[in-house]
Amino acid sequence: MIDFATHPDQYRHWTLRVDGPIAELILNVDEEGGLKPGYALKLNSYDLGVDIELYDATQRLRFEHPEVGAVLVSSAMDRVFCAGANIAMLGQSSHVEKVNFCKFTNETRFGVEDASENSRQRYIAVIDGTAAGGGYELALATDYIMLVDDGSSAVSLPEVPLLAVLPGTGGLTRVVDKRRVRRDRADFFCTVTEGVRGKRALSWKLVDELVPRSRLRETAMERAVAFADEAGRPEGAQGVELTPLHRTIGDAEVSYNTITIELDREQGAAVFKIRGPESPAPADVAGIHDAGVAFWPLALARDLDDAILHLRANEPEIGTWVLQTEGDGEKVAAYDALLAANSTDWLIREITLYLKRTLKRLDVSSRSLIALIEPGSCFAGTLLELALAADRSYMLEGTFEDSNLPPATVRPTAMNFGPLPMGNGLTRLETRLLDDADALAAVRDEIGADLEAEEAEELGLVTFTPDDIDWEDEVRLAVEERHSFSPDSLTGMEASLRFAGPETLETKIFGRLTAWQNWIFQRPNAVGEEGALKRFGTGKQAAFDRKRV
Amino acid sequence: MIDFATHPDQYRHWTLRVDGPIAELILNVDEEGGLKPGYALKLNSYDLGVDIELYDATQRLRFEHPEVGAVLVSSAMDRVFCAGANIAMLGQSSHVEKVNFCKFTNETRFGVEDASENSRQRYIAVIDGTAAGGGYELALATDYIMLVDDGSSAVSLPEVPLLAVLPGTGGLTRVVDKRRVRRDRADFFCTVTEGVRGKRALSWKLVDELVPRSRLRETAMERAVAFADEAGRPEGAQGVELTPLHRTIGDAEVSYNTITIELDREQGAAVFKIRGPESPAPADVAGIHDAGVAFWPLALARDLDDAILHLRANEPEIGTWVLQTEGDGEKVAAYDALLAANSTDWLIREITLYLKRTLKRLDVSSRSLIALIEPGSCFAGTLLELALAADRSYMLEGTFEDSNLPPATVRPTAMNFGPLPMGNGLTRLETRLLDDADALAAVRDEIGADLEAEEAEELGLVTFTPDDIDWEDEVRLAVEERHSFSPDSLTGMEASLRFAGPETLETKIFGRLTAWQNWIFQRPNAVGEEGALKRFGTGKQAAFDRKRV
Repeated sequence: MIDFATHPDQYRHWTLRVDGPIAELILNVDEEGGLKPGYALKLNSYDLGVDIELYDATQRLRFEHPEVGAVLVSSAMDRVFCAGANIAMLGQSSHVEKVNFCKFTNETRFGVEDASENSRQRYIAVIDGTAAGGGYELALATDYIMLVDDGSSAVSLPEVPLLAVLPGTGGLTRVVDKRRVRRDRADFFCTVTEGVRGKRALSWKLVDELVPRSRLRETAMERAVAFADEAGRPEGAQGVELTPLHRTIGDAEVSYNTITIELDREQGAAVFKIRGPESPAPADVAGIHDAGVAFWPLALARDLDDAILHLRANEPEIGTWVLQTEGDGEKVAAYDALLAANSTDWLIREITLYLKRTLKRLDVSSRSLIALIEPGSCFAGTLLELALAADRSYMLEGTFEDSNLPPATVRPTAMNFGPLPMGNGLTRLETRLLDDADALAAVRDEIGADLEAEEAEELGLVTFTPDDIDWEDEVRLAVEERHSFSPDSLTGMEASLRFAGPETLETKIFGRLTAWQNWIFQRPNAVGEEGALKRFGTGKQAAFDRKRV
Repeated sequence: MIDFATHPDQYRHWTLRVDGPIAELILNVDEEGGLKPGYALKLNSYDLGVDIELYDATQRLRFEHPEVGAVLVSSAMDRVFCAGANIAMLGQSSHVEKVNFCKFTNETRFGVEDASENSRQRYIAVIDGTAAGGGYELALATDYIMLVDDGSSAVSLPEVPLLAVLPGTGGLTRVVDKRRVRRDRADFFCTVTEGVRGKRALSWKLVDELVPRSRLRETAMERAVAFADEAGRPEGAQGVELTPLHRTIGDAEVSYNTITIELDREQGAAVFKIRGPESPAPADVAGIHDAGVAFWPLALARDLDDAILHLRANEPEIGTWVLQTEGDGEKVAAYDALLAANSTDWLIREITLYLKRTLKRLDVSSRSLIALIEPGSCFAGTLLELALAADRSYMLEGTFEDSNLPPATVRPTAMNFGPLPMGNGLTRLETRLLDDADALAAVRDEIGADLEAEEAEELGLVTFTPDDIDWEDEVRLAVEERHSFSPDSLTGMEASLRFAGPETLETKIFGRLTAWQNWIFQRPNAVGEEGALKRFGTGKQAAFDRKRV
C-alpha cells in the first residue's frame, strides 16, 4: 500500500529547515530509499516517495509556519540539483502507476504555485549544477529560478531525445505558457539532451538570474529576504500542527474522522459517507485557531485529500465513487458563513485554499463521480460542491416510505460563488451553467435557502430526481452501468465533459499534456521491448516505428 | 493512395443541389463504395471517402456558389440521418489511419463552422430518424439542428457504451462548450446507446427545434429561406470554378503549379519548395475575379491544402517537412496588399479564409516543421506565416560564397497581423511573442520592410541565423536529429508547444479530445482482441481490464 501520510521526522529525501520568515527545502535523495525495490535513486532522481515528502513539506509550511514568506528549494548534492523522475522506476512501472505518479507530482507543483500566488509563500529554485527533466520542472513551478553561471550548470528537458516520452510534470506547457519562452526556442530546448546554460538560459527566459557559484548562497538569501519582506505574512501568528490523521484502512471499509468509505468490489464502487460538522461552528476566529486540526472544514479537507490519494493509488479497480453526505445542512452553512466572514485571516485563507485544492483533486481523479442526495444529507455550500463536481447526481423527490426523515434539501452558500474555483478558473456552478448569467443569478438568489428536489432540479443543481418507488433501481442501474463500460473511455469522456469553458495552465496540463503523455506511455516507441524507456541505460539504441501519427 | 481530389460528378455518397440561395447536401451512402474492401457502409455510416466528398462539396459551395446563404444537410435514407463512422472500418484500420481519419473529419467540420460564421453560408441539419455518433457530430457542426418529433427519431453519442472509444469528431466538446448542454446531462447523454429524443432533446439543448415529420420539408425550407435572407450573400456574384489541380505524384517528387516537394526517404523528410507569384498582382478586384483559380493566393491555398493532405495520408514515415520558398518577396507583398485592400469582396474573403484554414491544417499536422530562409526566398506576409508556423527556422546570415544572390530577407505585411489566425484565436506572431505587446509592436513597425537575418532574429522572427560556413552542417544536423527521435514523442511535444495562450473549441478538440482519443485507440479495452471495437457485431461481449488510469 502506498501511504501519503508522513512527517519531517520521517523524511528520507528532503530536509525542511525554517528560520524565521525563510524556509529551506533541501533535496538529498537517499539512493536506497525508493518506494519499491528494483531501482536506485541516483543523482537526486525521484520516485513517488520523494514527492510524497515534498507534498507533506509544502502543506506543513502553509499550516505550521505562517511566518514563512520565502522558501528556498535547493540540493545537498554537489553539482546536481535534481535529475528528475527516476528512469528505471518509470521503466518498471505499470501504466497505471506511471499515470498516477505524474498526476500527483503535477498536483504538488500546482500546490507550490498556489502557495506563491495565494498564500504569499513564494518559492525560489536555487540551481547549482544540473536540473534535468522533472528537476527543471520542479524549478518551473517556483516563482524565481536562479542558476549558477559556471559554464556547466544547466537546465534541460531531455525526455524527448533520451526517453521518447514527454516531460511529465507540465514542463512543456510552463515553458511556453508560464515563462513565455518563444515556441521555436522551446522546440530547440526540448530536443537537446544537455540543455541550455548561462546567458542563453537567461535571455531565453528559462531562468530568472545567473549567479557565480561563489555568491550563490549569499544571493539566494538576499532574494529570499526580499521576497519574504514583500510577502507580508501575518505578524506573530501561531501555526496549526498537522497531527496524524485518524484513519483505519480495511479491505471493505476505509474510515476517517469525517468520512467513511465502503468498498463494493463487485460493482467496482466506493461509497463515500461524508459527515457534516457535529458541533456548532465556533463563535469567532479565535475559536477556529483554538480548534486547529479539529476545526471541521480543515478536518474534512485533510480526510478527503488523503482518501482521494489512497483510492487513486491503491484501488485502481474501484472506478466509481458514490458521494453521500450526512448531517445538518444548517451547521455546514454556519461553518461556511464563518469562513466567508473571516476570509482575510491567514488560517481561514489556508483552509479555504486547501478545500479548493482538494476539490480540484476530485475533479481530475479518473473516477466516475455520482452524488446521491437523500433525506438526512447535508449538501450545503462546501459540501454542495461535491454534488456539483459529480458527473451526475440523483436527488430523492419526497421521502422514503420507511423513514420519517423529512425530504432532502440542498443549500447554496457564498462558498459556491467564488472561493472554490475549478482548475479552469470558474466555479463549478459557472462551469455547469456556462455563460448563462440568468441561471446563475437564479441560484444566487437562493443562497441560504433549503431547496427540495423540484426546485433544485429547476435551478439546474441536480441531474435526476426519482421518487421512492424508482430510487433504488435507478441508482443501482447507474452504478452497475458505469461498471460495465470501458474504464478508459470513461476517463477520456469525463475529462472532456468536466471542464467546459476557458482553459488555464492547469487544465492544459491535466487535459492536453496529460492525455498526450498517457498516449505516449502506451506506445511501443516508448514502452515496447525495443522502446526508449526500456532500453535506456542498457547501451542498446531504441528502435522506432517511424510512422507519424 | 488516398486521393483528396474529387468532383460532384464523381460523388458516390452525397448529392449536392443548388437552387438559388439554398443548397442541399443529401447523404445517401453507397454501401459498397468504401475506400477499402472489407466493410459495407450500412445505414449511412461513413469512411474517409464519404468525408472527402463532403469536404469537396463545402469548398465548392464557398467558391462556386457565392449566391448560397443556407445549406440543408439531410439524408436520403428512410428514418436514418447518419450512423457515424463505420465501425468495421475503424476495427480494421491501423492506428495511423484512425487518427488521420479523425483529424480530417474534424477539419471538415470546423470548415462547416467557418462557413457559417465567416462566409455567411449557414448550415442546417435536418434529422429524420437517428443521428448517431459521427452522424450527430456532423449535425453539431451545423448552425441549427432540426429533429423530427415522432417518438423514435433521436440523437446519440453511443461510442462509450458501444465501442469503448470517444466520439471522435468533437462531439463531447461541442456538446458542453458550443451548445452549453449541462455537463451532467451530457454525461448521461453520452452513456445511453439509444440517445435522447423529442422534448428532452430540445430542453437539454441537444437540438434547436422539433418538427412533426409531416411538416419537416416545409419547415426546413422556411428556415433555410430565413437564414439565406439574413445571410446577405453578394448580389449577382459569379462563382469561381474549382478546376482540377495540376499535380504529379511520384515516388521522389510531388509537384503542383506553385509547389514542388522532394521526398528524402532516408532522412524521413519532405522538402517543400513553395514558389511566390510569377506575374505581378492584378490591378484590381476585377482582375482577381478574371484570374479565378489562377490567382496566385488561391492557387497556393489549393496546392498547399492538397499537398498537406496527401503527405499526411500517404507518407506517414516522412516525419519532417522542410519549408522553403523561392521568388520575389515584393510581389508576395503586393498580392497581400491587394487582399488586405479588398477584404470585403466575397472572393477575396473566401481566398483569405481558405489560406487561414490551410495554415491551420499545417499547425495540426503531426509533422516536424523546419523553415529554411535562404537567398532567393520570399518569406513575405502570407508566406512568412509558413516560417512562423514552423517549429523552428534557420535564416542564412549573409550570402552563400558560391552565389551572387543578395542576403535573404523576411518581410512582415498586414497579413501577419490578423487575417490568418491560428486555432487558438491568436495570430502566429501573437502566439510566438505571447503577451509581449512591445515585441509585437516592434514587428508591426517593420511592416513592408525587408529584414535581414540579424534584424529578423532581434525581432524574434527566426530561431537561428548561421552563416555560410555553418549553414549546411546546422541544417543537416537539425533534419537528421529530428529523424532520430521517437515520432510519437515529437507529436506530443509539438502539439504542446505550438499552441501557447488561450484555448478555443478548436484547440480543445485538436489538443485535449484528440489526445485522449489517440490514447484510447491504443488501449486493449478498445482495440485488443477482446476489446469493444474488435468485438462489436460479433455477438461476443468485450472483456475489460477494470483498472482506472
